[in-house]
Amino acid sequence: MEKYRVGVLGATGTVGQRLVQLLEDHPWFAIATLVASERSAGRSYREAVAWRLDTPIPEVAARLVVKDLGADLNCDLVLSALDSAVAGQSEEELARAGHPVISNARNHRMDPDVPLLVPEVNWEHSAVLSQQQADRGYSRGFLATNPNCSAIGLAMALKPLQDAFGISEVSVVTMQALSGAGLDGVSAVAIQDNVIPYIAGEEEKLQTEPLKILGDYRDRQFLAADIKVSAQCNRIPVLDGHTEAVSVRLRRPASAAQLRQALATFSSEPQRLKLPSAPPHPLLVRDEVDRPQPRLDRPAGKGMVVSIGGIRSCPVLDWKFTVVSHNAIRGAAGAALLNAELLVAQGYIQRRGASNPTGPGPGR
Amino acid sequence: MEKYRVGVLGATGTVGQRLVQLLEDHPWFAIATLVASERSAGRSYREAVAWRLDTPIPEVAARLVVKDLGADLNCDLVLSALDSAVAGQSEEELARAGHPVISNARNHRMDPDVPLLVPEVNWEHSAVLSQQQADRGYSRGFLATNPNCSAIGLAMALKPLQDAFGISEVSVVTMQALSGAGLDGVSAVAIQDNVIPYIAGEEEKLQTEPLKILGDYRDRQFLAADIKVSAQCNRIPVLDGHTEAVSVRLRRPASAAQLRQALATFSSEPQRLKLPSAPPHPLLVRDEVDRPQPRLDRPAGKGMVVSIGGIRSCPVLDWKFTVVSHNAIRGAAGAALLNAELLVAQGYIQRRGASNPTGPGPGR
Amino acid sequence: MEKYRVGVLGATGTVGQRLVQLLEDHPWFAIATLVASERSAGRSYREAVAWRLDTPIPEVAARLVVKDLGADLNCDLVLSALDSAVAGQSEEELARAGHPVISNARNHRMDPDVPLLVPEVNWEHSAVLSQQQADRGYSRGFLATNPNCSAIGLAMALKPLQDAFGISEVSVVTMQALSGAGLDGVSAVAIQDNVIPYIAGEEEKLQTEPLKILGDYRDRQFLAADIKVSAQCNRIPVLDGHTEAVSVRLRRPASAAQLRQALATFSSEPQRLKLPSAPPHPLLVRDEVDRPQPRLDRPAGKGMVVSIGGIRSCPVLDWKFTVVSHNAIRGAAGAALLNAELLVAQGYIQRRGASNPTGPGPGR
Amino acid sequence: MEKYRVGVLGATGTVGQRLVQLLEDHPWFAIATLVASERSAGRSYREAVAWRLDTPIPEVAARLVVKDLGADLNCDLVLSALDSAVAGQSEEELARAGHPVISNARNHRMDPDVPLLVPEVNWEHSAVLSQQQADRGYSRGFLATNPNCSAIGLAMALKPLQDAFGISEVSVVTMQALSGAGLDGVSAVAIQDNVIPYIAGEEEKLQTEPLKILGDYRDRQFLAADIKVSAQCNRIPVLDGHTEAVSVRLRRPASAAQLRQALATFSSEPQRLKLPSAPPHPLLVRDEVDRPQPRLDRPAGKGMVVSIGGIRSCPVLDWKFTVVSHNAIRGAAGAALLNAELLVAQGYIQRRGASNPTGPGPGR
Repeated sequence: MEKYRVGVLGATGTVGQRLVQLLEDHPWFAIATLVASERSAGRSYREAVAWRLDTPIPEVAARLVVKDLGADLNCDLVLSALDSAVAGQSEEELARAGHPVISNARNHRMDPDVPLLVPEVNWEHSAVLSQQQADRGYSRGFLATNPNCSAIGLAMALKPLQDAFGISEVSVVTMQALSGAGLDGVSAVAIQDNVIPYIAGEEEKLQTEPLKILGDYRDRQFLAADIKVSAQCNRIPVLDGHTEAVSVRLRRPASAAQLRQALATFSSEPQRLKLPSAPPHPLLVRDEVDRPQPRLDRPAGKGMVVSIGGIRSCPVLDWKFTVVSHNAIRGAAGAALLNAELLVAQGYIQRRGASNPTGPGPGR
Repeated sequence: MEKYRVGVLGATGTVGQRLVQLLEDHPWFAIATLVASERSAGRSYREAVAWRLDTPIPEVAARLVVKDLGADLNCDLVLSALDSAVAGQSEEELARAGHPVISNARNHRMDPDVPLLVPEVNWEHSAVLSQQQADRGYSRGFLATNPNCSAIGLAMALKPLQDAFGISEVSVVTMQALSGAGLDGVSAVAIQDNVIPYIAGEEEKLQTEPLKILGDYRDRQFLAADIKVSAQCNRIPVLDGHTEAVSVRLRRPASAAQLRQALATFSSEPQRLKLPSAPPHPLLVRDEVDRPQPRLDRPAGKGMVVSIGGIRSCPVLDWKFTVVSHNAIRGAAGAALLNAELLVAQGYIQRRGASNPTGPGPGR
Repeated sequence: MEKYRVGVLGATGTVGQRLVQLLEDHPWFAIATLVASERSAGRSYREAVAWRLDTPIPEVAARLVVKDLGADLNCDLVLSALDSAVAGQSEEELARAGHPVISNARNHRMDPDVPLLVPEVNWEHSAVLSQQQADRGYSRGFLATNPNCSAIGLAMALKPLQDAFGISEVSVVTMQALSGAGLDGVSAVAIQDNVIPYIAGEEEKLQTEPLKILGDYRDRQFLAADIKVSAQCNRIPVLDGHTEAVSVRLRRPASAAQLRQALATFSSEPQRLKLPSAPPHPLLVRDEVDRPQPRLDRPAGKGMVVSIGGIRSCPVLDWKFTVVSHNAIRGAAGAALLNAELLVAQGYIQRRGASNPTGPGPGR
Repeated sequence: MEKYRVGVLGATGTVGQRLVQLLEDHPWFAIATLVASERSAGRSYREAVAWRLDTPIPEVAARLVVKDLGADLNCDLVLSALDSAVAGQSEEELARAGHPVISNARNHRMDPDVPLLVPEVNWEHSAVLSQQQADRGYSRGFLATNPNCSAIGLAMALKPLQDAFGISEVSVVTMQALSGAGLDGVSAVAIQDNVIPYIAGEEEKLQTEPLKILGDYRDRQFLAADIKVSAQCNRIPVLDGHTEAVSVRLRRPASAAQLRQALATFSSEPQRLKLPSAPPHPLLVRDEVDRPQPRLDRPAGKGMVVSIGGIRSCPVLDWKFTVVSHNAIRGAAGAALLNAELLVAQGYIQRRGASNPTGPGPGR
């Protein structure tokens, strides 16, 4: 069956490179178009990209001529890893022009008619898309987003606890990887043998995005979850994999065993739909006292599994634990991709101009 | 005036090396004896030590023949950087034999008649030493301790807040340096490009030691401060300098400016006594959003100043901020040394066999 | 077809873990026995090992009870990652007892009747094994070795140049990864933000082993290649992947294009035999000016490809270039495994006690 | 006595920051003017600079308002840490306008009438300045340069060997620190857990600059030393301190003891002149097998001493050894400063408009 043709925006950056990597041999999707800055446009992707991944550039991508944002994208859906400096307006224009746009940028995440999706957590929030299309007068285009890289790992760890016990307060301190800042985001001179206890805008995102993700979409609007989140964000010299030290206060009492059980058995809509990028068990509970660790646990489930360990009682709130997730895969490129798979499976994305518009999604 | 003769126990380890470094050219103290394991005993210090500091081995120490624990120490006071595996019994025997012992080991820290001293925080806890000597039948010997490296930085940051506003709850996540684990404590293969979210025994220490330090000594006993502390301890690839992300709940309301003021103007007994290792301002408040950072701020005040920054409100508790302190100096060797200076100034240590037992301390 | 049963010695160390990892799903081999120190013996592998790889412990290995060296190994061949402190005698005893032993230890590498094999370079040196068995009175057992991790990458890069142009002199400076020193071989405190310009015994190995590898086996003896090698070995803070800066003097003139061609088209016996661990192209020439790099190029060919780049003329010798190879795979565990595959294909290893002794090797 | 007033160009960069640091409390020099890019001009230095050093910004510098290149510099001499993109023309114009310019930039290093000075090596090359002033029609201004950071350490290690034994060939492989590339020169994502075996233009510099430095200035021209140098340059994850693995072929035979002696007893003109930044012994020979190491040895002599160790015979050339020097101090800022001190002592720099033009130099 013919694959959906994907356009990747911001294809030369950290997240863009990961998208290109993950789209190689994808069962539903094929790269049709690569878009980057004007500086790159007109050159082959191989020439334009400073490839930093330890797998080769996929051949099909390497040969593509990079386009600029104004070009005809000629694709069925758009995965955007645009920088937030340009994403805001560009993504909106593309959606208006008829493209399903699934974005990693922060610009539209908190818009009242844009879903902020983590498929395992709030797959049903996509319902807002019909409203968005109607209200904005979009035809087949729309705008959907995935959350900040730290917020995704946190939201996934919180979801089963919220469902089982309710959560009232969360305190989280992050130790974030270098790749989260992009190819040139952190200078080696600045971070060598060091910690930088500040990431611009990050604490704000981590204190607000989880509330939308874990909240409800009802009566055509989003209701934020009633949780107080306090975040402290640090950059550390680790390449990939964000580590988060989390404490939570629950609304209903739970034992450590119940907590562990809720996390370890968590499964959700992407698993039911058997989405190609969804790991069978999205959360992995580790029982060794010194796990999870970013270098050892970031590749779990090809980077799509969130690892949790060190579950123990907290003298101030109720429970504390450590979360590790691959910021560049589960936290960015894989997040956008899984969202695309979800929206295909839910029927929000069709093949363009096809007589039979359905693609290789499940149950078809 | 003649200097006090100092014996250093565990002189070849990380903390022992720092003690030897800090004792070079000390105005009150001179190295008299270096003690290490049997493997080292009998060799010159230069041969016995795997020196890891970036200043040369002080010549006077380099030539000393290392003794073992059973030897005659021939000194006025003992600074112990012994491993906890042997510190417990050895230090007690030395105190009983008449040596003032100031220890960095964890073994006796929580003993009910042993002070756990941070001179800026609880200088008056040394009063327990008279009771200790009387109860244990020690003559001139005694046993005093300094806290865990993470606990010292935390206690110093909390002290002015406790005094000014009262503290009821503390949540702290540490990012701890490699040198805190000793010369061979962390394998490079384990920590390269990684975080290890576990340090054996560390969370327990950080949740209990500050309560003794910030508590009272009254009616011949220690009363723990009424504060709940929750700690999560992580090892990260930074050589020196522990970073702590702290949140506090205060008993009385405070503005950010009041908080900052209390921290920035903090001064205490070591400053009044002008102890040689006491920095004029023990806390340094940094106003840049991205400070303190361990590589840049660990050398503040020759490693004796604790840097604090990022003071901002906490949605879960009241306030949060970042603390950086040099774990090997303020957190260990410098801590023991400052305690020795305090106890000299307070009159607990005298020159041995001197007709005029007073040494070069202040006001003499 | 039934797989060969493999015993892994030193199974809990760095190289042992890699062997266990590489043997999962191997088409010819299955792990039968795991051997480690007495401390580990009697415990399950999962309990005994401090697993440091970023893939899960293979289930079949995790459950095996670790044996000690004296136990019945019950296997068709032995892959030894023993420490050199014990490898010397143990491996010899096992060979005498009838085990084909393929060793990563340095002890027997330069023995006059032991092959030092890199299958792409000197596959025919295995002929010495018949002589070894005859001379030593071994029945079906024997002792074969792979070279030092740095020597393998170097020898592979030199082989096509030696064949095409002859080599008279080699100057090599290594920047070696942490994993080459084993799990606890390098302390993080020692190597953080640092280079250690010394690795015990390493320069000696790198100056001698390539001569045996690139030499001849004729008339029942090894003739060392007539090449002078000068080595300077450095440890740097990189997890995996040795980088070598190489200069060579050739015996016959060559152009850069000829040099590149000889390297890029290199193929050898393991490729002809289609050994399972042999990459189709064992050398990869990179044309970007800043490649190869250890983090990006160590995974090439699942760690079995040696990457070469920066080919340019040398004002002192003739040519210089950079070599990167995965020290733990191509340089150790993968090296032993490929040797085992070679010796199966060459008929030196048979299934023990099988009525039909041939296994799943090629052409059977 | 009044100090010479110094203007620092490129004051906000890595080298500029080091210059500001080193000029604090300098006995001869005082910072008069700080110059940086237009973006910084008009702001206080404290606001303009992203200070990355672990000592505080000197107060006197912090308050200065940064000027741009076109401003009146109002100083007696200029130390230039300008980027090579602008240094070429700017420095020439300043010299023409009457400023003694001592530059760290590469632009004019190989000019036939510009000295490339390492005071311990070729202090007498400053004689070219009179010729330069005459030929170019400069009044009191001139242009002098210091070499590339790697070339300085190498040239200093070679100088005593060249004097004592003659050198015909040098092979050098560098492992260079991050700070050598400037504040944003290397992205953390690129170098984390990695080596980059390429630094643009660096090998060319290292193969040519030492020949000028070690050569003669005779009959009004520079004669390059008759030495062949081959260089391979690598960037590694170390903050400060370049490590160089060196092999040399000598013209006259020498024993290891003679070699060591020549290096260890080396002393030169800056020592005779007692220049303030000149260490008493510019070379430090270390006899431990695993030294020098950049983290431990870069601070030797306040960063002005070059450490040498691992002297051993080379099977290809004659001798090999390891050199470590602080790239940002001895290799850049300290190099320019020592050159300024030399040129003051030699009388090439006078106080501007002073009735008594001599300053605090030696013997005055």
